[in-house]
Amino acid sequence: MPELDSDRLFPLDKAARMLARDLYEGISDLPIVSPHGHTDPAWFAVNNPFADPAQLFVIPDHYMLRMLYSQGVPLEHLGIARTDGAMVETDSRAIWRRFAAHYYLFRGTPSRLWMDHALAGVFGVTEPLNADTADAIYDHIDACLSDPAYRPRALFDRFKIEVLATTDAALDPLEHHQSIAQSDWAGRVIPTYRPDATTDPIAPGFAANIAALGKVTGHDTQTWHGYLAAHRARRLFFKARGATATDHGYADAVAADLDPANAATLFDKIIAGGASQDDQALFRAQMLTEMAGMSVEDGLVMQLHPGSHRNHAAEIFNTFGPDKGFDIPKAIDYTTALKPLLNKHGLNPNFSLIVFTLDEATYARELAPLAGVYPALKLGPAWWFFDSPEGMRRYREATTETAGFYNTVGFNDDTRAFCSIPARHDVARRVDCAYLATLVATGRLSRVDATEVAHDLAYRLAKQAYRL
Amino acid sequence: MPELDSDRLFPLDKAARMLARDLYEGISDLPIVSPHGHTDPAWFAVNNPFADPAQLFVIPDHYMLRMLYSQGVPLEHLGIARTDGAMVETDSRAIWRRFAAHYYLFRGTPSRLWMDHALAGVFGVTEPLNADTADAIYDHIDACLSDPAYRPRALFDRFKIEVLATTDAALDPLEHHQSIAQSDWAGRVIPTYRPDATTDPIAPGFAANIAALGKVTGHDTQTWHGYLAAHRARRLFFKARGATATDHGYADAVAADLDPANAATLFDKIIAGGASQDDQALFRAQMLTEMAGMSVEDGLVMQLHPGSHRNHAAEIFNTFGPDKGFDIPKAIDYTTALKPLLNKHGLNPNFSLIVFTLDEATYARELAPLAGVYPALKLGPAWWFFDSPEGMRRYREATTETAGFYNTVGFNDDTRAFCSIPARHDVARRVDCAYLATLVATGRLSRVDATEVAHDLAYRLAKQAYRL
Amino acid sequence: MPELDSDRLFPLDKAARMLARDLYEGISDLPIVSPHGHTDPAWFAVNNPFADPAQLFVIPDHYMLRMLYSQGVPLEHLGIARTDGAMVETDSRAIWRRFAAHYYLFRGTPSRLWMDHALAGVFGVTEPLNADTADAIYDHIDACLSDPAYRPRALFDRFKIEVLATTDAALDPLEHHQSIAQSDWAGRVIPTYRPDATTDPIAPGFAANIAALGKVTGHDTQTWHGYLAAHRARRLFFKARGATATDHGYADAVAADLDPANAATLFDKIIAGGASQDDQALFRAQMLTEMAGMSVEDGLVMQLHPGSHRNHAAEIFNTFGPDKGFDIPKAIDYTTALKPLLNKHGLNPNFSLIVFTLDEATYARELAPLAGVYPALKLGPAWWFFDSPEGMRRYREATTETAGFYNTVGFNDDTRAFCSIPARHDVARRVDCAYLATLVATGRLSRVDATEVAHDLAYRLAKQAYRL
Repeated sequence: MPELDSDRLFPLDKAARMLARDLYEGISDLPIVSPHGHTDPAWFAVNNPFADPAQLFVIPDHYMLRMLYSQGVPLEHLGIARTDGAMVETDSRAIWRRFAAHYYLFRGTPSRLWMDHALAGVFGVTEPLNADTADAIYDHIDACLSDPAYRPRALFDRFKIEVLATTDAALDPLEHHQSIAQSDWAGRVIPTYRPDATTDPIAPGFAANIAALGKVTGHDTQTWHGYLAAHRARRLFFKARGATATDHGYADAVAADLDPANAATLFDKIIAGGASQDDQALFRAQMLTEMAGMSVEDGLVMQLHPGSHRNHAAEIFNTFGPDKGFDIPKAIDYTTALKPLLNKHGLNPNFSLIVFTLDEATYARELAPLAGVYPALKLGPAWWFFDSPEGMRRYREATTETAGFYNTVGFNDDTRAFCSIPARHDVARRVDCAYLATLVATGRLSRVDATEVAHDLAYRLAKQAYRL
Repeated sequence: MPELDSDRLFPLDKAARMLARDLYEGISDLPIVSPHGHTDPAWFAVNNPFADPAQLFVIPDHYMLRMLYSQGVPLEHLGIARTDGAMVETDSRAIWRRFAAHYYLFRGTPSRLWMDHALAGVFGVTEPLNADTADAIYDHIDACLSDPAYRPRALFDRFKIEVLATTDAALDPLEHHQSIAQSDWAGRVIPTYRPDATTDPIAPGFAANIAALGKVTGHDTQTWHGYLAAHRARRLFFKARGATATDHGYADAVAADLDPANAATLFDKIIAGGASQDDQALFRAQMLTEMAGMSVEDGLVMQLHPGSHRNHAAEIFNTFGPDKGFDIPKAIDYTTALKPLLNKHGLNPNFSLIVFTLDEATYARELAPLAGVYPALKLGPAWWFFDSPEGMRRYREATTETAGFYNTVGFNDDTRAFCSIPARHDVARRVDCAYLATLVATGRLSRVDATEVAHDLAYRLAKQAYRL
Repeated sequence: MPELDSDRLFPLDKAARMLARDLYEGISDLPIVSPHGHTDPAWFAVNNPFADPAQLFVIPDHYMLRMLYSQGVPLEHLGIARTDGAMVETDSRAIWRRFAAHYYLFRGTPSRLWMDHALAGVFGVTEPLNADTADAIYDHIDACLSDPAYRPRALFDRFKIEVLATTDAALDPLEHHQSIAQSDWAGRVIPTYRPDATTDPIAPGFAANIAALGKVTGHDTQTWHGYLAAHRARRLFFKARGATATDHGYADAVAADLDPANAATLFDKIIAGGASQDDQALFRAQMLTEMAGMSVEDGLVMQLHPGSHRNHAAEIFNTFGPDKGFDIPKAIDYTTALKPLLNKHGLNPNFSLIVFTLDEATYARELAPLAGVYPALKLGPAWWFFDSPEGMRRYREATTETAGFYNTVGFNDDTRAFCSIPARHDVARRVDCAYLATLVATGRLSRVDATEVAHDLAYRLAKQAYRL
């Protein structure tokens, strides 16, 4: 490495490996559809060069930070800003050297696969990254970054990205999306409506967010009906800027279905402040179902990303803020939790709800059985810690027999690490081809069918599921 | 497909594949022992021809219905009767065409494996099923069905079924089983005692069922002792009709062990109506342990099938009734739940309790450790959504190292899809041979031992565990 | 068997198998580091011969007992002493014959792998164990045992054990460890501080244990500060006898972090007797965090082994006592449970906490994400029922992608079955080499890196993690 094995991630057995290679060759050059992720739309609106290798690859990537920190590298040494403004490392080359010296920690991880692929595929780096090569590779990448061919729009085009969705707070003005749309660049970068900060009473600044939502929409968000109307309006604003989906992330998947009078009373309690934790949880739950109802109306596809205990280490959160690698999954229930929402909207074929999980035990036990029968429900791809070769394999093995392929939605790269996008889609395509080849080689799928399914998983299903 | 690969489901590696093939050839022609399933005894009592391909393969199969419905095919279009009597599709050919046009949805599923195997193996269909071939295959099967060789008894004999157990409500008169036994046909079709509707206070018609149980047994089921006596009598009635087992299915596996006075008091509360949900749950739990005690007395093997949230979508249940694919598993505990029952009867070598699960996380964590030490406890095969190649592989990999092979009970087909029975047993035999071959090829089992175990798993253990 | 396949546990595919063999050959002769186990230090202090084959292999091994008992062999027939003093089998040859006659039950289990390896590797037995060979093998082993080359110290040296940790109650005088240290034998046998009986209010004899702890340390253990001081002193006593680690085992992993005044008040309630179950649980939880704090002070590595429901069958416990195979795992949470402890000490790079689990669902969901970010947390190897080829494979597949290799700690044999120690380490080394070879063969790891990681997993990480 980074001499990449052209047969990587394929089955060991020679006949199955040749089958996988054939399937992969048929789909490896398809455009990338990226319907869920966290890139910064400003990159594509402004099209400034990326700053330097450390700021491109290390500082914004919580997968990298967490592993380095777990083995004793202080976050300050990696240039992570402190909330108290105290000094942290500002020398990007020093950060890069630390990263390179600890690069052995990533052996066997998807971060390593993505990084090696990005180094080789995007920057043409052909030697392994380590303490000895750190400086030369830094200089090489740094030089590339000043070349117009490595600016965000050029890379977007080089990566053959057909559409890229970002994730945006409900209050985001979306000016970068607008500016991209009005530019002469043909790249399609669309927003996604993420309203958690205005639907979850425990979100920081919740009351202020509600007030701001009223201001930007012109609705009186101090009343239940005005609050709902404001969400409706804001969703349409996002839709007008190109959004085809919403995204929702709570610690659990609990939905509620109160009658309108009770929901209004609950809202009044929440807005008055001082509601109990139970009331707060019930409101969150009710808002999931309300958002589902709005999706039925406006056609935005609903995504649900639950199950993470955010900011597990208080000291890290207080010192460095969120998204530093301290979000930890926990056991989660879907069968009971989603029932009120699914009983209200789950049989509606116009509604589309894509559910993700961080608890793999729910794939075969709950999510595949649910997605395999509810017309509205689809199963999102292996997410976060499971966006990996083993995670994807387990996902297919656990879900296909019950939900089939056509209740799944293709791949999400879900990343803010822009240069890893081709690598991530490549891993997904390879793992899916390996799985399909194994089905063919064990008499469970015909070769003709496998060829069609490979194309569906790599390209068509994402477009269809996200209405792109 | 349906050109079936003769090496399907075997390991990819050539040497292991040849080992698996050898093991399989030694057991593939063994008679079928089917100790748990849901076929209709009337088929074998009356021996009328099956109606048509749609009524044989599509309408009664909730695996088929759920997948088709999940992708937008209304149940009415598949001929599923509505409880309000409104019109549904009655043209079986139209139903079959819809099924065929959507048959691609089943790629990668066990339903597809079973169906292809039944089409090829039972009806000699050699072309793939799809919209183009739907009519020709319909006509071919339809013609077969009018041939005496395709009547239920003839197929039973052709399938080499040694014994077939049905599942029957406690109040069932078992007249079909009696009529089969008194006929000149040698086929062995035996009932299984399924008392849930008379032991679970939340079962529909519970009070009426208790009254009816009194009527058919002549015991006063309004008293605790009379109620228990009625169950004892009814179990013996089933036993006299050939039953060797009982079956119990609740949402959980919770057992209780009240002292007799408290149990009687609880029964009085239940029978008086208006008991709390907690009391109802406690009664259900107590009845599990009571049934275990009766098994100790009368020798009927006890089966426990817990963990399904039945009729998840209220609208489907209200419109079409139960068993339409909307039963969804959820997380379940056995270690704590079964403790009262196992503490009372679990060390008794005359008692046999076969436990199933829909929560695969419990295989290695709870069920294999429990079955690997309690003399009474055996582990049932991979059930329902896990009656599949991957499900069976995971079952063996998760349970064998702790429970061994001899605390498991062979295979159940658990089906009402009669023509799929040979296919289902064939899948189980192939997957087990693949697993055994892998053990041999990795030095974990001798070839001689594997040959014996293959026979045990395919045939002997089911007979022994179910006392057949 | 016991003709052992020299390629056992390696991948099926030929190229991957050769890679695995190469990796294995590089590490198979490394010394054994055994940082956690349950051998008896008296064996090495006194160095008496082991008694006979049954007392060596059958009677002390709860894996053997549980399987035999599950299939109807009474524990009395296996020589297990009854608490009521009633007669049990005392003829070791008769016990051995029973074991041999039922040896087929262990097909596919790790017990069988270990036993065959010990028979062949330690005693040179080359014929399969069964009823026919039982006597000859008994005689052969029995003869060996009277040979000085089979005494504990000689076997320790022959097994190339570099260091062996035992597990010892806080009140243990450690006289055997002292006597080993003072002997002319160079073997390193070190204790581990296991204080559960003095930290868990539901432990049998808790009050007396607290009093005894006061007596041996000279601290007033009737006060909170004296009690803590006594633990500090006792830990240093263990450290002076060679200990580098502590070990803690409760039914759950719940930690608490009370302020000192509340902790003292709670202690007073506990010591007064009659505390509620909630108070007892809270005290247990608080003591986990206290022990973590003491590890920060004295540098002893903290091990946590939670999640077993001990002595599940009351009758077995009453008749035969603990550790007879009736400890059953159950679902467990770490993310929420450990948060108070990790928030207090988890970012401290001087603290080292090694966590184990019996709930495999937590590997990928909770433990790998936690170990992959908290500097103090490391992931213990696959434990107990998962100390097996499939268990180890699942462990690596579930944890490596998120935690990497370097947040794991190598292998533990965790056994009192002394002769199985080489076999257990050999299984771990083979399975790890198979995993690494698969990564190499699928382009996920370079061969050079795999060679280094193989050495780390087999030897270096255990020494580093346990500070040996």
